[in-house]
Amino acid sequence: MLVQRLIERKRDGGRLAPHEWEALTRMFGSGAMPDYQMSAFLMAAFLRGLDREETGSLTDAMLSSGATLDLSHLNVGRIDKHSTGGVGDKVSLVLAPLVASLGVAVPMMSGRGLGHTGGTLDKLESIAGFRTRISLEQARRQVEDIGCALMGQSGEIAPVDRKMYALRDATSTVESIPLIAASIMSKKLAEGLTGLVLDVKRGSGAFLPELDRGMELARLMISLGEERGCPVVALITAMDRPLGRACGNALEMEEAIHALRAEGPPDLMQVTYALGAEMLVLGGVARTLEAARRQMEVAISSGKAAEKFQQIIAAQGGDPTVVDDPSRLPQAREVEIYSAARSGVVAQVEPRAIGRAITALGGGRSTMEDTIDPSVGFVVRARTGDVVRVGEPLATIFARDEAGIAVGRAALAEAFVIADDAEPPLPLVSHRVTRAGVELYEAEPWVRTAEFPVYVERG
Amino acid sequence: MLVQRLIERKRDGGRLAPHEWEALTRMFGSGAMPDYQMSAFLMAAFLRGLDREETGSLTDAMLSSGATLDLSHLNVGRIDKHSTGGVGDKVSLVLAPLVASLGVAVPMMSGRGLGHTGGTLDKLESIAGFRTRISLEQARRQVEDIGCALMGQSGEIAPVDRKMYALRDATSTVESIPLIAASIMSKKLAEGLTGLVLDVKRGSGAFLPELDRGMELARLMISLGEERGCPVVALITAMDRPLGRACGNALEMEEAIHALRAEGPPDLMQVTYALGAEMLVLGGVARTLEAARRQMEVAISSGKAAEKFQQIIAAQGGDPTVVDDPSRLPQAREVEIYSAARSGVVAQVEPRAIGRAITALGGGRSTMEDTIDPSVGFVVRARTGDVVRVGEPLATIFARDEAGIAVGRAALAEAFVIADDAEPPLPLVSHRVTRAGVELYEAEPWVRTAEFPVYVERG
Repeated sequence: MLVQRLIERKRDGGRLAPHEWEALTRMFGSGAMPDYQMSAFLMAAFLRGLDREETGSLTDAMLSSGATLDLSHLNVGRIDKHSTGGVGDKVSLVLAPLVASLGVAVPMMSGRGLGHTGGTLDKLESIAGFRTRISLEQARRQVEDIGCALMGQSGEIAPVDRKMYALRDATSTVESIPLIAASIMSKKLAEGLTGLVLDVKRGSGAFLPELDRGMELARLMISLGEERGCPVVALITAMDRPLGRACGNALEMEEAIHALRAEGPPDLMQVTYALGAEMLVLGGVARTLEAARRQMEVAISSGKAAEKFQQIIAAQGGDPTVVDDPSRLPQAREVEIYSAARSGVVAQVEPRAIGRAITALGGGRSTMEDTIDPSVGFVVRARTGDVVRVGEPLATIFARDEAGIAVGRAALAEAFVIADDAEPPLPLVSHRVTRAGVELYEAEPWVRTAEFPVYVERG
Repeated sequence: MLVQRLIERKRDGGRLAPHEWEALTRMFGSGAMPDYQMSAFLMAAFLRGLDREETGSLTDAMLSSGATLDLSHLNVGRIDKHSTGGVGDKVSLVLAPLVASLGVAVPMMSGRGLGHTGGTLDKLESIAGFRTRISLEQARRQVEDIGCALMGQSGEIAPVDRKMYALRDATSTVESIPLIAASIMSKKLAEGLTGLVLDVKRGSGAFLPELDRGMELARLMISLGEERGCPVVALITAMDRPLGRACGNALEMEEAIHALRAEGPPDLMQVTYALGAEMLVLGGVARTLEAARRQMEVAISSGKAAEKFQQIIAAQGGDPTVVDDPSRLPQAREVEIYSAARSGVVAQVEPRAIGRAITALGGGRSTMEDTIDPSVGFVVRARTGDVVRVGEPLATIFARDEAGIAVGRAALAEAFVIADDAEPPLPLVSHRVTRAGVELYEAEPWVRTAEFPVYVERG
């Protein structure tokens, strides 16, 4: 009856002691506590909340349910980045090789796409042969050898978190800040990091659209990390429109390769550099954020970052020639230009509509069991504030067939709002949060353009 | 994804439309919606509530998940009684034969004991051979023949309610007024009743101790019944102390037989008559509550009620001679008198301590899988307000062995509070609730006695 008493206590707004979190987690992990009891508990936890100590206890209990990556013998900083996810967010694909090429170890654990947001593992798997299921032992050796491994959460790491996340997904208990924080931190702490950088998205396409909720998550994760010897820095970034131009797995991989070859769209580069600078400073290879930024520009212009990506691809069984020739990535059968139905100013490019459409096209998942088609998606040319004329191209649709093109057309008609005027979008990087507090980022000037930015694109 | 959307809506405090309750119930019943999703939904429903229409939709959906008892061809009223349960509550055992002996059909569906409260089915099964698992067809024939059937919820009636209740029990989502009301009413409406009487307990031993919560349940069930053509009357009765003297399955059966033979304790008789009068008036065989009461007194003094009980026992495979010779009921091996540790006034006889002790002695259930020993329990002699001297007997303990006697002793030490003075207990029957509103019952005078009431008892 112990389990019912714990459910009851959380249901009535009470708190659990550390040993109770430990017991609950162990019983759930072993199957002694059935899923139906855990899902009732999770709903109670969702609605009643967890205090900071409880969140820490849950994190510790999930962390200790599995193995950890021991990289303490390496004489370099070990830094990962985590993003709360969004549409077009291919930052990890650029950042991991870029930062690793500058001497910081990057043991990066990523997830798969679900709902309207994409996942780094799915994007990586658009490269023929690329294996994201690697053992901890393999990851350890690869980080020793080439400074970076890009992996999924194997059964070895925080298995209880994995089991609990699947249950939360099926029972509408995902969007709880303490549960999210404990889930992320239990995995990140298992990587044996010396620092962690968070990309907390806000805006309509974000997991937590409101700034205050994102800030709350950032602060909670910072305190969880710092208390456990892992410094954490969080940046708040914009997800009121897609990041970069490409949305869809192979299309985003292609854009990431362009970025590593100094041909990335400016918004993607700005977010990548902002996060990368934090990683390099935390990792001890740069003294200031400005110095870090210059190092990254050199790593990209010299080809070092792209080369590092090739090493990683080769180490994980993929075809490294894709970096020289992105046309080797899966290609959609049907391609169509989508044009403006009226003249005006682009007032909105709604990321959720685009994200959902990728799933509808077969490029995302409704449930974790779905398989995906990496070739489909969109390249979005027009940005918020652009002045467009009727008939001008706004985006390109990539689909498997004509039906997919029609789905894409409908989604873009929903995503693009063309009006007589536009409000400025959210600043791309707005806040920097550390244990010391919150700093405002200097806002970029917002320029309405009558011209499209120069950008190499397909389709 | 439909199910997650419904969970999400309830989680966020929204409401479900009738067809959504219907779909949810059907999917859960068929197994298309797994237990872990339903338990998350139930926790959300527990914490967010259901409005009146939603409660009705759930009731209808669960009712229509199974068969109903069609007794509409009978030319008599068909009335059942439901109690929210308590310690020593053996009213059904007396009431069903008593009311049936006066010409009202009583298709009575009861439950098993769980936690600190006993269950009518367990008490009936203390009679050798008594079968409570009877089919709807058998129940129909028995009501036609002898006017009464005492049955459990078979798989035929509201199977989704049965499945949902088991899940609620395992996930701490039982004590929700709308879920309780829908569960009870879905079963009661399946009996094809022309009226229903509710015994809503209040006080420390009740399922819902606070009067306002009991009142809320009563009002909700009245409106659910009335809207579906089944008039409902509720009485609020006291459960701040055990009802009657006997607590434990065979002991309560024995006390019920005494009551049918005009030897019942006054408090048990008062509650039985109050509920029975409502049943007789609703059933159309008495014009006033006073007339009904006189009819019941005659049925008992003439032996008609006891004879009806014998007919019911015989029809359900039990040994009817138990009514003439209650010593044929299972007898506990160990019996011990429990005496007052000090002189004073009995200020409290806590029913929960006694109910929990019955379970500890082996006479109740912690989980629905437990089997029970019908012989164990207590006979509580002293009542709140009694003046007692040190060493005077307060109760008798019935156990399987010496260890059980020790458990019983400890429980009684907790249950009995002897002080210098006592507050009056709750009035035995305090409120009568109908669709017209609430009437206050005339309070019985509370008399402190220096003598024990005359009462035939064992041990």
